Amino acid sequence: MISICIIGAGNVATHLYKAFTQSNQLQVKQWYNRDLSKISTYKNEVAITNTLDDLVEADVYLMAISDDAIKQVSSNLPFENRLVVHTSGSAGIHDLDKKLRRGVFYPLQTFSKGVDMDFKQVPICIETIDKQDIDILKTITEAIGSKWYRINTEQRQTLHLSAVFVNNFTNQLYRIAHEISDAKSIDFDILKPLIMETAKKVQTVSPYMAQTGPAVRHDKKTIKRHLKQLENSKHKDIYELLTASIKNTHGR
Amino acid sequence: MISICIIGAGNVATHLYKAFTQSNQLQVKQWYNRDLSKISTYKNEVAITNTLDDLVEADVYLMAISDDAIKQVSSNLPFENRLVVHTSGSAGIHDLDKKLRRGVFYPLQTFSKGVDMDFKQVPICIETIDKQDIDILKTITEAIGSKWYRINTEQRQTLHLSAVFVNNFTNQLYRIAHEISDAKSIDFDILKPLIMETAKKVQTVSPYMAQTGPAVRHDKKTIKRHLKQLENSKHKDIYELLTASIKNTHGR
Ligand SMILES: NC(=O)c1ccc[n+]([C@@H]2O[C@H](COP(=O)([O-])OP(=O)(O)OC[C@H]3O[C@@H](n4cnc5c(N)ncnc54)[C@H](OP(=O)(O)O)[C@@H]3O)[C@@H](O)[C@H]2O)c1
Ligand SMILES: NC(=O)c1ccc[n+]([C@@H]2O[C@H](COP(=O)([O-])OP(=O)(O)OC[C@H]3O[C@@H](n4cnc5c(N)ncnc54)[C@H](OP(=O)(O)O)[C@@H]3O)[C@@H](O)[C@H]2O)c1
Repeated sequence: MISICIIGAGNVATHLYKAFTQSNQLQVKQWYNRDLSKISTYKNEVAITNTLDDLVEADVYLMAISDDAIKQVSSNLPFENRLVVHTSGSAGIHDLDKKLRRGVFYPLQTFSKGVDMDFKQVPICIETIDKQDIDILKTITEAIGSKWYRINTEQRQTLHLSAVFVNNFTNQLYRIAHEISDAKSIDFDILKPLIMETAKKVQTVSPYMAQTGPAVRHDKKTIKRHLKQLENSKHKDIYELLTASIKNTHGR
Repeated sequence: MISICIIGAGNVATHLYKAFTQSNQLQVKQWYNRDLSKISTYKNEVAITNTLDDLVEADVYLMAISDDAIKQVSSNLPFENRLVVHTSGSAGIHDLDKKLRRGVFYPLQTFSKGVDMDFKQVPICIETIDKQDIDILKTITEAIGSKWYRINTEQRQTLHLSAVFVNNFTNQLYRIAHEISDAKSIDFDILKPLIMETAKKVQTVSPYMAQTGPAVRHDKKTIKRHLKQLENSKHKDIYELLTASIKNTHGR
């Protein structure tokens, strides 16, 4: 049984709390948040506190708090030589105070308040300063059904950047399609199966192999007509830049 | 029972042939392709031909051939006043010869050779010149388990353009993430669950509401670091343009 104290009560902390409590290999010993009201509904299930000095002893302290707060909060922890991990994709492992045994437990997913997350679909990127500490992070990951990947800080920051492309930027392309189709009174629902299929395809085929459409076919006539159809000049810019990018990737 | 002749033997024709033959409301009476070798494996199941003049009478002629060939092939059809539909997202309904009863049967999906398609996930955009012809297209759509949408030519061309954004351009963002992570020896598999989740989220939440990340948060520090991390200047341009687009959408 691995005992864990959770620090923070945002999206990630709340999803992980639920996942941890569902595993019989893990015990959430205590939950800290500076604003106690956010965790008070859990007070019958778990010890809660808003005072760092009251933190009890545990195998791991999981700190799921805003990137900017990691440095300060970790330096205020009232103990040394215990394993403390943060959950950030961008903060360095050295952002944690060096009096601690330091690690990272970064879930590469997008969490939403109120929407349950199947942790089988959450790859966890783990890193520790001390080699001996890695096994406990592997065990926690497996206990919640996730896959772990040993990823160093530079790689993790690269993943965080890649995630912006496949998540935030992709979502913005969905948004632009929504705007374009709304303008002609078209139900956005029509595009949803294609959105799913596009994501599904690259689960088994590389994005390179999966590419289709006018840019990779060098179908100049269609590209020209599409550019004419686009009324918003910023959408035009995006169309041109991504078309050029596809042509570049596919070697012409 | 609706009888259908299929014209063409590419991706779309082949997937539709399979879907049609699985329905007991539909009968594929004949299959035409100019190159007979592409359909000869089916010759024990269906009458095949490579001669337009040999086409038999049927309720609907489904023409799934290259956009550029629609005009010419339709004008070479050896009959008049029969219902002929093309499957193109971009060709106009008037590209079909006016001696015919004309229509469009555009499946808004991405088909791959050899990968079976569940037609429940294929919205079909239908359009006819004659009002009376629309019902038969609805029936065919329902017979293969698809949903139909009545979409005029302008709307269909807009959908085709939107599809480039959510399919081709999105896939290119996956590709860029693949390049970025490969460069740091990171397994692209780690990003796959996030890709799925991003697509899944907009099935129920609007892309506007689903947006997260540094651009919508106006997290200048992260954006600056990401731009520094990007080694390829074209990737930088895409990062900047899509970041600006997100900021623009979310009103700052
Ligand atoms: N959201 C995601 O999808 C996601 C995915 C992977 C990794 N992450 C990473 O996980 C971490 C947490 O993200 P989140 O989305 O859960 O954030 P969030 O929902 O915004 O929650 C932030 C938490 O940090 C606490 N906090 C902020 N400043 C603090 C301070 N100075 N002292 C003490 N506590 C402080 C907040 O406390 P109050 O409740 O008192 O305000 C809150 O509990 C971040 O490092 C983030 O990069 C997020
Ligand atoms: N692929 C998709 O995901 C998709 C999705 C929705 C709609 N569409 C539309 O569906 C139509 C067919 O696309 P596809 O992907 O199935 O194309 P494809 O796989 O490239 O097949 C093209 C077919 O057109 C035939 N063809 C080309 N020129 C011809 C000519 N001059 N005379 C007679 N036949 C000719 C080809 O015959 P040969 O076999 O003899 O070369 C082949 O059977 C297009 O209008 C396309 O825009 C495609």
